[in-house]
Amino acid sequence: MRHYKIALLSFLCLGTTIALGQAVKEDFKPSTKNQPGKEYPQVNSQGYARFKIEAPAADSVRVSLGLGGRGGTKLEKGEDGFWTGTTEGPMDEGFHYYHINVDGGTFNDPGAKNYYGSVRWESGIEIPAHDQDFYALKDVPHGKVEQILFPSPSSNTSRRAFVYTPPGYAQNQNKNYPVLYLQHGWGEDETAWSNQGHANLIMDNLIAEGTIEPFIIVMTYGMTNEIKFGGLRNFDITPFQTVMVDELIPYVDKNFRTVAEASHRAMAGLSMGGMETKMITLNKPDVFSYYGLLSGGTYAPEDVDKVDVKLIFLSCGSKERPEAIKAATEKLKEAGFPVASYISEGTAHEFQTWRRSLKEMAPKLFTK
Amino acid sequence: MRHYKIALLSFLCLGTTIALGQAVKEDFKPSTKNQPGKEYPQVNSQGYARFKIEAPAADSVRVSLGLGGRGGTKLEKGEDGFWTGTTEGPMDEGFHYYHINVDGGTFNDPGAKNYYGSVRWESGIEIPAHDQDFYALKDVPHGKVEQILFPSPSSNTSRRAFVYTPPGYAQNQNKNYPVLYLQHGWGEDETAWSNQGHANLIMDNLIAEGTIEPFIIVMTYGMTNEIKFGGLRNFDITPFQTVMVDELIPYVDKNFRTVAEASHRAMAGLSMGGMETKMITLNKPDVFSYYGLLSGGTYAPEDVDKVDVKLIFLSCGSKERPEAIKAATEKLKEAGFPVASYISEGTAHEFQTWRRSLKEMAPKLFTK
Repeated sequence: MRHYKIALLSFLCLGTTIALGQAVKEDFKPSTKNQPGKEYPQVNSQGYARFKIEAPAADSVRVSLGLGGRGGTKLEKGEDGFWTGTTEGPMDEGFHYYHINVDGGTFNDPGAKNYYGSVRWESGIEIPAHDQDFYALKDVPHGKVEQILFPSPSSNTSRRAFVYTPPGYAQNQNKNYPVLYLQHGWGEDETAWSNQGHANLIMDNLIAEGTIEPFIIVMTYGMTNEIKFGGLRNFDITPFQTVMVDELIPYVDKNFRTVAEASHRAMAGLSMGGMETKMITLNKPDVFSYYGLLSGGTYAPEDVDKVDVKLIFLSCGSKERPEAIKAATEKLKEAGFPVASYISEGTAHEFQTWRRSLKEMAPKLFTK
Repeated sequence: MRHYKIALLSFLCLGTTIALGQAVKEDFKPSTKNQPGKEYPQVNSQGYARFKIEAPAADSVRVSLGLGGRGGTKLEKGEDGFWTGTTEGPMDEGFHYYHINVDGGTFNDPGAKNYYGSVRWESGIEIPAHDQDFYALKDVPHGKVEQILFPSPSSNTSRRAFVYTPPGYAQNQNKNYPVLYLQHGWGEDETAWSNQGHANLIMDNLIAEGTIEPFIIVMTYGMTNEIKFGGLRNFDITPFQTVMVDELIPYVDKNFRTVAEASHRAMAGLSMGGMETKMITLNKPDVFSYYGLLSGGTYAPEDVDKVDVKLIFLSCGSKERPEAIKAATEKLKEAGFPVASYISEGTAHEFQTWRRSLKEMAPKLFTK
């Protein structure tokens, strides 16, 4: 079925780009985040997304993507019992979480793979980005993503973390590596940076092209306040700080060939993970030397006055509050602190911003 | 709401146990396979499962579990817009895949985690088993589950595998380990043995209690015929055999400290993975010495007549066709072949059978 449509209405909101009077091109292809063999959801070369959901006896099917708070995209029922619909405008490049609403209930799209975000496993869709090459799966040497279970006496359990070890790690038995501790955002978990962020592929590609020296990345679960919605105001960093500094780092330093010194240890995080990074790096100034806040706030000169920091990296998307990042960077620079910043063009508080931020940050780590 | 019910009707079918005149105990708890913080689905001490799904405007909500082919469990709508219902009888112990049907469409339960089975990401639920201790997460040294991306010229891509390395692997740099190549079933993928099967925890526990010598497990994707339904009749093992024997094994032997000899290499698989194991072990008799078919068929003496096999392990659930396993075992024994078999009591063609089979098989591997 050919389907042309003029996007008369368009609103600037999360994940949606303004597009006035643009004809929808009928070159839709299955999203790369679909389950194997699933034809829908689809995306076209302009960034429109199209959905197709089977629910023959339903009265209403909506998709949360498209117009954000305005109710997303309403699907229409065909005679075959399938509901279809296309977003009213093109989406931002990169990865988006979404879900569908069937007769008032929240479900996932049976065609899409699931990604942990918003404190639930959500559907995911990928709008091909012009710069997708830097996180593509290529024919280069690949590192590993290792799931470890490390003892956590403070939480009385074994906790999970994922550890990226670069290509060559197994062969170069005499080499020790710096470590980046990299945190996810609110409602996500330790799977986010690999699954949504492709952190391992970003690293493999940067290493293959010689842009960075190999290092290890450690990713663990940072929702220490667990499933308390709206609890960020009363956020207590202590439980997670204990897990990170007293339990995870010693375990990693014992079980991987690390350079076990603050001078070769970085912490960074996105969104809430940036807030955690700021708190922990300032509470424990002897543990990390490189700090990264990705859409996760800023440091002021007085924050880091008594701290031996080698680099502060600040970033966000151009659709967030880039002026805050720029102003903070300027102040830190003026005060003589080592700082670098990055604004991701055309993206919001979503993973494309953070994939790009990791790519920009990685070459600046462990260089001093 | 208290809810007593006499199970008047009861049918013997997949995942359901006969229970006549049994009162349903109101000691329901969230399934251990739920998403963090989700109250439903729940299970009680008798093995009943209870579901609660929000869909205020739906006309019909059913759960695929409960009475198998007879349409599963029909949920009833409450005034709060939530649909609830309890299975008509207790379920078999262990892990079950399921999905829900909302007004004719197939969706997952928003409360449950998802597991790849039936060629889609399905909801999963866990009925606590009397012997669940052997795959529990305990305070013992834990091995790693490492995601590798290995080059596959035959399929022109990098393919994913998961590699379990036992505790101590990183420290004992002079030790080399035997390897078990362990395959999933039809419609599953390389995540199944860790996620549904808890293979890593089974190994950690067996090693901690001194029941086995540590070995490596490698798990990769075996659906070489990809998403062709009903295609098992015309199954061509060649593409997967090439990936396994010519690409994966050399990569593992190069990148892990293995004993790279047939005498220290095993292959086993569940269901379709057993069929693949049988085909590959017989086509490539110089590659593996230990063979395991878990609910995956049998070997006849004439199959292995010209093969230097150190052990054949055959297993299935008591609700499958145990007489076939017993008969094949007897024939192999009479013909003088080294064979061991195991029947999992009270389980069907599901993961509890295979968790137990791995636990029974592991101590018999690499002992000759």
